[in-house]
Amino acid sequence: MPTESDFLAWVKQQQQATSRVLLPAGDDLAILRWPSDDLLLVGIDQVLDGIHFDASIHPPRAIGRKAVNRNLSDCAAMGCLPAAAVVSFALPGGVGLDYATELYLGLHDAAHPFDCPIVGGDTGSWNGKLAVSVSIIGRADGVKPITRTGARAGDGIYVTGPLGGSILGRHMIFLPRIREGRQLASSGVVTAMIDLSDGLSRDLPRICSSAIVEETGLPIHDDAKVAATESGIGHRSALAHALHDGEDYELLFSASAPPPVGTRIGTVTAQGGIALRRRDGTVEPVVSQGWEHGL
Amino acid sequence: MPTESDFLAWVKQQQQATSRVLLPAGDDLAILRWPSDDLLLVGIDQVLDGIHFDASIHPPRAIGRKAVNRNLSDCAAMGCLPAAAVVSFALPGGVGLDYATELYLGLHDAAHPFDCPIVGGDTGSWNGKLAVSVSIIGRADGVKPITRTGARAGDGIYVTGPLGGSILGRHMIFLPRIREGRQLASSGVVTAMIDLSDGLSRDLPRICSSAIVEETGLPIHDDAKVAATESGIGHRSALAHALHDGEDYELLFSASAPPPVGTRIGTVTAQGGIALRRRDGTVEPVVSQGWEHGL
Repeated sequence: MPTESDFLAWVKQQQQATSRVLLPAGDDLAILRWPSDDLLLVGIDQVLDGIHFDASIHPPRAIGRKAVNRNLSDCAAMGCLPAAAVVSFALPGGVGLDYATELYLGLHDAAHPFDCPIVGGDTGSWNGKLAVSVSIIGRADGVKPITRTGARAGDGIYVTGPLGGSILGRHMIFLPRIREGRQLASSGVVTAMIDLSDGLSRDLPRICSSAIVEETGLPIHDDAKVAATESGIGHRSALAHALHDGEDYELLFSASAPPPVGTRIGTVTAQGGIALRRRDGTVEPVVSQGWEHGL
Repeated sequence: MPTESDFLAWVKQQQQATSRVLLPAGDDLAILRWPSDDLLLVGIDQVLDGIHFDASIHPPRAIGRKAVNRNLSDCAAMGCLPAAAVVSFALPGGVGLDYATELYLGLHDAAHPFDCPIVGGDTGSWNGKLAVSVSIIGRADGVKPITRTGARAGDGIYVTGPLGGSILGRHMIFLPRIREGRQLASSGVVTAMIDLSDGLSRDLPRICSSAIVEETGLPIHDDAKVAATESGIGHRSALAHALHDGEDYELLFSASAPPPVGTRIGTVTAQGGIALRRRDGTVEPVVSQGWEHGL
């Protein structure tokens, strides 16, 4: 039977030292050289079987990719560059070495294009379901990170792409908006930013307490239109899918002047909460209906 | 029903900015100021229900503590200081807000004495068992990290404490040897170091391919003696428990001269593999019997 040691030996072969990575995975900790005065950003995001993917449907390589891409999306939302990532795998007993290596290759597929080495990991087999947790380290590299606070009344609200219906498959294969995040953070006009993981109606209040969203401006993804017509997926309109569906992984941001990328969907207001102006001019409150889990 | 948002709101209240932590948990990523030319160390270690703890027996606070302490033990093994940690919780549905806050308080209990803020996290409820993954960032702070490579024939081999029988309870309440690791890394005589998580017989080959361990020198924990006599736990001698049991979380290291702390248990040799010299002078090979899991 293949063992965790076999897998770790294989992972070690995939590693290499670079100018930034003095000691790659394989020791107790990896060692990185950090540039003088470069801000360090750090976070962690997991994907869980039955919540973020379905192990009976999605291949391990796609699961690994998503685990990294969710974290890269956090880097995008701060406007930073990924520097390195570490990963823990909780593997159902008996999945085998090929499954584990495919998971790892999925991490690599996602991280490599963004020059983000996987520098450490922890693998455990258990009598439980698949859980993959990735922690990412980002670097500001001369660009001031954009936080969720900073939006002011009058700022425009923008998104980097159309929203809704990602459950039809896009949630597994999205491309993190690292380049757009960098452009936006460098532009000097972005006042607050977040990546859309829980749905517009839940994520927008995280960057401003009051805003008006224009139905005429909101880009609705074709997937949202399909989801609205397909039976069994939802009995909601395409607009409702765009407002409330999770896992778009587009950037949502406010800006004090027209930004280099993005579609304007509304305006930060001084009071009144989050509202939607319909095509007919009527204004209604937007109530959060995105992902929210009980404990 | 309490939600993940309630928990996150509570976690945010626990956070504070410091001179090192410019932006604590609550945004997409935390932001740290990193000192010029300080090496950065990073790793990740998870604890899984049924493998590293038993959720039906161990309280959440103890589980949280262990999750952080395993990572602090990795810092100790490199001789670095912890700088910050991030955590992901995969929570069985319905555990409730109190359970989640107790887990978090356990993290804090372990991290706070070592000035290691918890700067980020990801919480998900699932139809699965409890998994807690912690990623730690360490800083060299002027002391060269000690890796697993560097042991030379003739070096003494040492441990920071008695071994064996941790399954009786010590594996949940060990103290990470951060201070000892720093002392050792600063001493200039330590050539390789690791923390004992998988058992001496499995971890010793990770720092040297050949060594002789002296039975007369090996400190055997009282727990190993109890484990050897108690029925149902094992039919192995106390010596076998000390050699093969996992989760001691003591430091194992080689040194070219007497170190400031530690008990000498043997010597790095030029060839012959890992061997044990018994009290009667006979020498036998040591075969790894520590933790090893199939995939």
